[in-house]
Amino acid sequence: MFPSADSDRLRVVLVAPRNPLNIGAAARAMSNFGFVHLRVVNPYELAFREARSAVGAAPLLAQAKEFKTVAEAVADCTLVVGTTSVGQRQLQHPVRRLDQAARVLRKQLAGDRVALLFGSEKRGLSNEDFSHCHWLLRIPTREDHRSMNLGQAVAVCLYELARDPQTSMKPEKHVPARADDLERLTSLLLDGLSFSGYLKLRPIASQQLRSAAPTEEKIRRLVHRLRLSATDAELTLGILRQILWKSRQDNNCPQ
Amino acid sequence: MFPSADSDRLRVVLVAPRNPLNIGAAARAMSNFGFVHLRVVNPYELAFREARSAVGAAPLLAQAKEFKTVAEAVADCTLVVGTTSVGQRQLQHPVRRLDQAARVLRKQLAGDRVALLFGSEKRGLSNEDFSHCHWLLRIPTREDHRSMNLGQAVAVCLYELARDPQTSMKPEKHVPARADDLERLTSLLLDGLSFSGYLKLRPIASQQLRSAAPTEEKIRRLVHRLRLSATDAELTLGILRQILWKSRQDNNCPQ
Repeated sequence: MFPSADSDRLRVVLVAPRNPLNIGAAARAMSNFGFVHLRVVNPYELAFREARSAVGAAPLLAQAKEFKTVAEAVADCTLVVGTTSVGQRQLQHPVRRLDQAARVLRKQLAGDRVALLFGSEKRGLSNEDFSHCHWLLRIPTREDHRSMNLGQAVAVCLYELARDPQTSMKPEKHVPARADDLERLTSLLLDGLSFSGYLKLRPIASQQLRSAAPTEEKIRRLVHRLRLSATDAELTLGILRQILWKSRQDNNCPQ
Repeated sequence: MFPSADSDRLRVVLVAPRNPLNIGAAARAMSNFGFVHLRVVNPYELAFREARSAVGAAPLLAQAKEFKTVAEAVADCTLVVGTTSVGQRQLQHPVRRLDQAARVLRKQLAGDRVALLFGSEKRGLSNEDFSHCHWLLRIPTREDHRSMNLGQAVAVCLYELARDPQTSMKPEKHVPARADDLERLTSLLLDGLSFSGYLKLRPIASQQLRSAAPTEEKIRRLVHRLRLSATDAELTLGILRQILWKSRQDNNCPQ
């Protein structure tokens, strides 16, 4: 995740939001992704602080600051960025796609206070709101359906902002099985296939079966294709051993 | 964006969702990011299809398919991936972080049907649900607040899945001003500064001012730091020319 001193420099500013559920959802997403400073300009419903949608983020919502104008809400910030779905309006500002915007914002947040503005559910940010912005960002949506839910737009923006570029290429934690375990598994499977009559041979010792090369190779390739983890290989070996032991025992028992 | 034939292969599966508003929000996010096939397993409220939160995605919600079990909902898919916030439960599955998971999913979607499962708002996916999954993905949230709103989790996952890795490094569309325009601007500013007495010199032709090197360099550096676009440079030149013309005219007029 993001260094917390940096994320502490972000102000999420909701301008004229109408639905308290969306304000609560924005607060929840902020808490999920490690941001704390919520500012609300002219909310439609004044009693937004009790929004039940702020699951796990009630303190953050309680500490949200209210402002009457965008100018006041962004006064202490050195970079002000507006969000837009780039609709019919001709924009007078440069627009960056979210992923590119996030890279610039991350750099800026290393030293400066940044305000990220979201407009109302109905109309988004107005041209007057935009005039307070240095530039705009848009979330890359489908051309035919650009308008996102406010809470979802906040979540997507903060997810991208909190993204850690350094570790994004970290390989998955898959501890693969060792070759000798895979060989034991191959061997056990061949025993089982032979014993069960699948190979249409009488029960023979696995040593003798080594001559049935094509089948053995087929089984070995199958085992390798499974890309078993070390623990899964162990588990599978245990299961197979148990089944074979049980089958042999039943076979030796007088009926 | 994603090739539409690929996104058409994804099934978004909501397992036992409780709140119709979240189902509608999931539908809206699917429409935003270009996915169409919604499946719902055992919804708590059967009348979810009228959810008002599916703004712009009512047809998608109307065509959602209902299933009684996870097994039936994923039957025609070759890869089944569950989402998890990795809480207290000990997971038996490999877990990939969303960005890594998305890379794998995009490859798979080039040829296969993939199901992406989201659990209920209260408990997420159960261990029984997980047992239908090949692996799990988690959205990288803050350790102390992992639980996301369902609609927001769907939005973040689909945003990442629809991300176009090829174009993510595309430079921003900033057409910078040409050097000769910046030089004209520097020149005009020096004229204005000199004319206005800022330079504490009598009005002199810009040619003569060339000798006032330190000031000129200071102004030129300022102009370059602005990183003006071509159109902004043009605009600024126009404004400055107009101001200077007006000032000179007023100065020449008999008072």
